[in-house]
Amino acid sequence: MQKKLIAEFLGTSWLVIGGCGSAVFAAGVPDVGIGFLGVSLAFGLTVLSMAYAIGHISGCHLNPAVSFGLWAGGRFSAKELGPYIISQVLGALFGAGILYAILSGKGDGIGSFAANGYGEHSPEGFSMMAGFIAEYVLTFMFLIIILGATHSQAPKYLAGVAIGLGLTLIHLISIPITNTSVNPARSTSQALFVGGWAVSQLWLFWAAPILGAVSAGFVYKYLSPEEGE
Amino acid sequence: MQKKLIAEFLGTSWLVIGGCGSAVFAAGVPDVGIGFLGVSLAFGLTVLSMAYAIGHISGCHLNPAVSFGLWAGGRFSAKELGPYIISQVLGALFGAGILYAILSGKGDGIGSFAANGYGEHSPEGFSMMAGFIAEYVLTFMFLIIILGATHSQAPKYLAGVAIGLGLTLIHLISIPITNTSVNPARSTSQALFVGGWAVSQLWLFWAAPILGAVSAGFVYKYLSPEEGE
Amino acid sequence: MQKKLIAEFLGTSWLVIGGCGSAVFAAGVPDVGIGFLGVSLAFGLTVLSMAYAIGHISGCHLNPAVSFGLWAGGRFSAKELGPYIISQVLGALFGAGILYAILSGKGDGIGSFAANGYGEHSPEGFSMMAGFIAEYVLTFMFLIIILGATHSQAPKYLAGVAIGLGLTLIHLISIPITNTSVNPARSTSQALFVGGWAVSQLWLFWAAPILGAVSAGFVYKYLSPEEGE
Amino acid sequence: MQKKLIAEFLGTSWLVIGGCGSAVFAAGVPDVGIGFLGVSLAFGLTVLSMAYAIGHISGCHLNPAVSFGLWAGGRFSAKELGPYIISQVLGALFGAGILYAILSGKGDGIGSFAANGYGEHSPEGFSMMAGFIAEYVLTFMFLIIILGATHSQAPKYLAGVAIGLGLTLIHLISIPITNTSVNPARSTSQALFVGGWAVSQLWLFWAAPILGAVSAGFVYKYLSPEEGE
Repeated sequence: MQKKLIAEFLGTSWLVIGGCGSAVFAAGVPDVGIGFLGVSLAFGLTVLSMAYAIGHISGCHLNPAVSFGLWAGGRFSAKELGPYIISQVLGALFGAGILYAILSGKGDGIGSFAANGYGEHSPEGFSMMAGFIAEYVLTFMFLIIILGATHSQAPKYLAGVAIGLGLTLIHLISIPITNTSVNPARSTSQALFVGGWAVSQLWLFWAAPILGAVSAGFVYKYLSPEEGE
Repeated sequence: MQKKLIAEFLGTSWLVIGGCGSAVFAAGVPDVGIGFLGVSLAFGLTVLSMAYAIGHISGCHLNPAVSFGLWAGGRFSAKELGPYIISQVLGALFGAGILYAILSGKGDGIGSFAANGYGEHSPEGFSMMAGFIAEYVLTFMFLIIILGATHSQAPKYLAGVAIGLGLTLIHLISIPITNTSVNPARSTSQALFVGGWAVSQLWLFWAAPILGAVSAGFVYKYLSPEEGE
Repeated sequence: MQKKLIAEFLGTSWLVIGGCGSAVFAAGVPDVGIGFLGVSLAFGLTVLSMAYAIGHISGCHLNPAVSFGLWAGGRFSAKELGPYIISQVLGALFGAGILYAILSGKGDGIGSFAANGYGEHSPEGFSMMAGFIAEYVLTFMFLIIILGATHSQAPKYLAGVAIGLGLTLIHLISIPITNTSVNPARSTSQALFVGGWAVSQLWLFWAAPILGAVSAGFVYKYLSPEEGE
Repeated sequence: MQKKLIAEFLGTSWLVIGGCGSAVFAAGVPDVGIGFLGVSLAFGLTVLSMAYAIGHISGCHLNPAVSFGLWAGGRFSAKELGPYIISQVLGALFGAGILYAILSGKGDGIGSFAANGYGEHSPEGFSMMAGFIAEYVLTFMFLIIILGATHSQAPKYLAGVAIGLGLTLIHLISIPITNTSVNPARSTSQALFVGGWAVSQLWLFWAAPILGAVSAGFVYKYLSPEEGE
């Protein structure tokens, strides 16, 4: 169990270092910056690379909503939920700390630090309701992809590719809406460093992803029951 | 059968949410927008991710032209064509409805809503004939890829990657020509929300893709018969 | 044999439609155009998608240099070289014809039509010698990738991915140098439509790729002999 | 052994030709240039393509830090470290020589030649300490990915995809910080051609990657021992 939790810690720190890091360091460089497309790719590749690196250790959730969704879908035990989520949040905080340390070596402050937001803190000014719908629907579909690609009838060697690139797709759609969360751990780490508005909007990035994920768990269980059930 | 139809419904809604959604929300953001390249990737990744998520449930067509082409290629029964196509169109409409709801939270109207068009509604001013040729040829090749990659002699675990990225390629070529359809369901949902010109040009985005797909079905059947035949 | 040649014809037409087509239609659209990155991806995805679609029919060469390199590496018989190369060139011409037909529906002429060139016809002004070195070295490495990824000890299901994305990589390096050939068929079709300078520079895009490919065939044969030899 | 060393030589030359070459030739072309995103993709694809081409010959390290990390993780013998590293550095120099030859055909000098740097030679002005942390952490995670994806319990056919795209991710994060090394061979070849500041900063691009890689070797060995141990 300890090894699982270390793997989740490391993996979630990587999600923040890679996804939020690419946004903070590289998205807005003039002319040659990677833009939202590069950030979308980076988020997806954190999950793709970790899926093959630690998938056989912890299952590579890296995300409280994923753990909840897998529980709802009958693939993860309730008693591991707590420890997994704590490891994920701590890993995300550790990753954000590394980004903070690197950014200090430039000396321009941390800016919005890739935190998630809605309303006036949405990158393109989308309302709270729009943000809630987007986070709910996208996490719902993310879990459909995860539950499907890891199903016993799916070609499971490819699951890490489908899930990682699925997360890239989710970011391609929704960075302009909420800066894309679908992951409460990633939202929490960035919000705690930014403080103020980011913390006060944080509730949405726990509520909507977890609700979406749990809904997907129940839907997928109906659509495609595991053989053992 | 009901589960198959729900899977097609969900999957096609995802194609619209991901493909048209990325176009509507993220393509044109100044400096960091994802452009046609990001939209192309998004469309392909909707299919790639769904192929692994629901491929084992419904076959993951998500597209009336694909269903027609698989029928012509001897891989899909005529009596399922109707229900599949209805589910796909309803799913696309549902996806467009979600995009509409999110977009309402910004308040700028829906613009062209990623609808397909030719002539004065072609993104770069290509004629109706150019649009017809492009949609016919590209759907033809899309079905060649689908029929080939799912053939019993192909390494089928990779089919979802080849087909999804094949759709990305198709968009890389033709967004400037017709905004790229190759999928009558995706065209219909966006046209119904936009109305007017989009509805009056909709015929082309049923006719050309389906003709191309059916042609490919017959050609591939000649090139590489299934072992059982 | 006839089916193999039809497959090579179709596949090479796809390489031109996808690779040259994306360059001609979508690379330079202001603000949202796909640029050299999108064109690089498109060329690679033509090969990736065809590898899974027709690999089991013809081996999916789509390129006279590839056929020569496989022959030098002991993987392809000399007597099939002629028919394959003729099919490839005809397929490329057919693809270019389709691009020409679509482009006629816009009415701005064909411009450079993604033809290959050096000296004053190099996109960024690279000399003939630079172009020759680049085409030689890149085709050499392309064949190393192809011979390696299809080797009996390599995980061959992934060969199409490695080879296709290897071609993407080659374009990421060298579009500014020669517009990237590494494929005499693709060079020939575009040169014949453009005429003039493009035809007079065409020799380099036969000589350098074929020399590079044949060299790689001999080198790889030394490095990693097939089990049967 | 000789074949292994030739394979490492060729593969590392490809890493420099593809990664540094795309940066030098194509990153900054106005309007259609590939930017940091394209360069990131190119570096990753050099490793992805070589993993399938020469993985079965030499293991495809292409990087002294990788060889050190695999040694620390108990996957590579100490006595092969020296010959591998020498081949890698020579291969990188050979690749840089080819880039130099091609660039001479344009006649604008070699500029920064994609060399790595910190402080005033960091692309976006990050300090030496920031550069050290970034190189240490990113090489640490690169080795976690490599050790995990090639572990006997991971789906090893996909290792080349996970590792290659992992390197793409690393570049998406850190090109603005140090131009991204995580590979002392790649840093050395470019520094020797540039001379001056690049050589005097070279120590960091040996020290930080190797320390990071060795740390990861020990951590992963604890997390997930090989079956045979």
